[in-house]
Amino acid sequence: MGRWEPNARGRLAQAALELYLDRGFEQTTVAEIAKQAGLTERTFFRYYTDKREVLFWGAGELQRTLVEATAGAPATATLIGAVAAGLDAATATFEEHREASRRRQSIISANAELRERELIKLASLATAMAEALRQRGVADLAASLAAEAGIAVFKIAFERWIDPANQRPFSLLIRESLDELKTVASGGY
Amino acid sequence: MGRWEPNARGRLAQAALELYLDRGFEQTTVAEIAKQAGLTERTFFRYYTDKREVLFWGAGELQRTLVEATAGAPATATLIGAVAAGLDAATATFEEHREASRRRQSIISANAELRERELIKLASLATAMAEALRQRGVADLAASLAAEAGIAVFKIAFERWIDPANQRPFSLLIRESLDELKTVASGGY
Repeated sequence: MGRWEPNARGRLAQAALELYLDRGFEQTTVAEIAKQAGLTERTFFRYYTDKREVLFWGAGELQRTLVEATAGAPATATLIGAVAAGLDAATATFEEHREASRRRQSIISANAELRERELIKLASLATAMAEALRQRGVADLAASLAAEAGIAVFKIAFERWIDPANQRPFSLLIRESLDELKTVASGGY
Repeated sequence: MGRWEPNARGRLAQAALELYLDRGFEQTTVAEIAKQAGLTERTFFRYYTDKREVLFWGAGELQRTLVEATAGAPATATLIGAVAAGLDAATATFEEHREASRRRQSIISANAELRERELIKLASLATAMAEALRQRGVADLAASLAAEAGIAVFKIAFERWIDPANQRPFSLLIRESLDELKTVASGGY
């Protein structure tokens, strides 16, 4: 099957998510994912290096969005304002995919290897954001702290956003967490 | 060699650090570590499950210290004050081991698997600290944010502390980072 398959990447991702949820990540093979998507294993490996990557291939795009929006914040923005601009742009890419995000996270939470991978991606986001802030002329310590705190806000707001009991938009939860961080750091509790 | 070996754990750790620095973590075997320490492989496995654990076995103790001091902060302490109490107690256990901490970190930085392990340990510290804060009656969101920000402060202050160009005590670097976080979160830059 050398022919071009329309939306093969998306079909494979959809099939993989269904199987991971149904049988568990560990129990699912690439052959099964390809079959479920009506494609071949060879096609799978044209888009993903392994079955883990299906869950993380959006991370590069997310990081680019975050970094570009942080770097592109107005020169007059405060440091935390630039961080907020980055987080707002990043969350905008999620907003319409709440149910898919929930499903993906439940797969990751159930597997230690995937949880580790997620931590590495978050650490990589913080490193990239700190670099974007330094490029704006922010001093080392402030850039590192702002980036680490910003990614902590992102992580915590994300957890709240995918909580089925929560209906509010991701962007609002980011804003609330940033405000809460300000109160906490200032000794307000 | 069933007999008791004085300070076997410490001798094995010392031998392992020397070999990891000298030859690299991956190139070092448990047999070599045991030999260098004048002990047997069997004795090694009485103290450590594998050669990676030599670098991380202090993590449990660190977490207990952090959690107990956070929990034990005066009831009148602010939330960030309780976090600071936890960090102060944790850093006190490091203060006299600056050179050993530097050596250990250079081994970890050189190996992706060890860097991942370090991230997992930090995430576990944040989870444990958040739980200690909730036990103090702190609401979920504030507890999570304070804990994640506190561990970010710990991580960043640690990096500065082991920088050979830096001579200031760990406790002072923690204090500076907490102050800087307050300024950053309040939009002070």
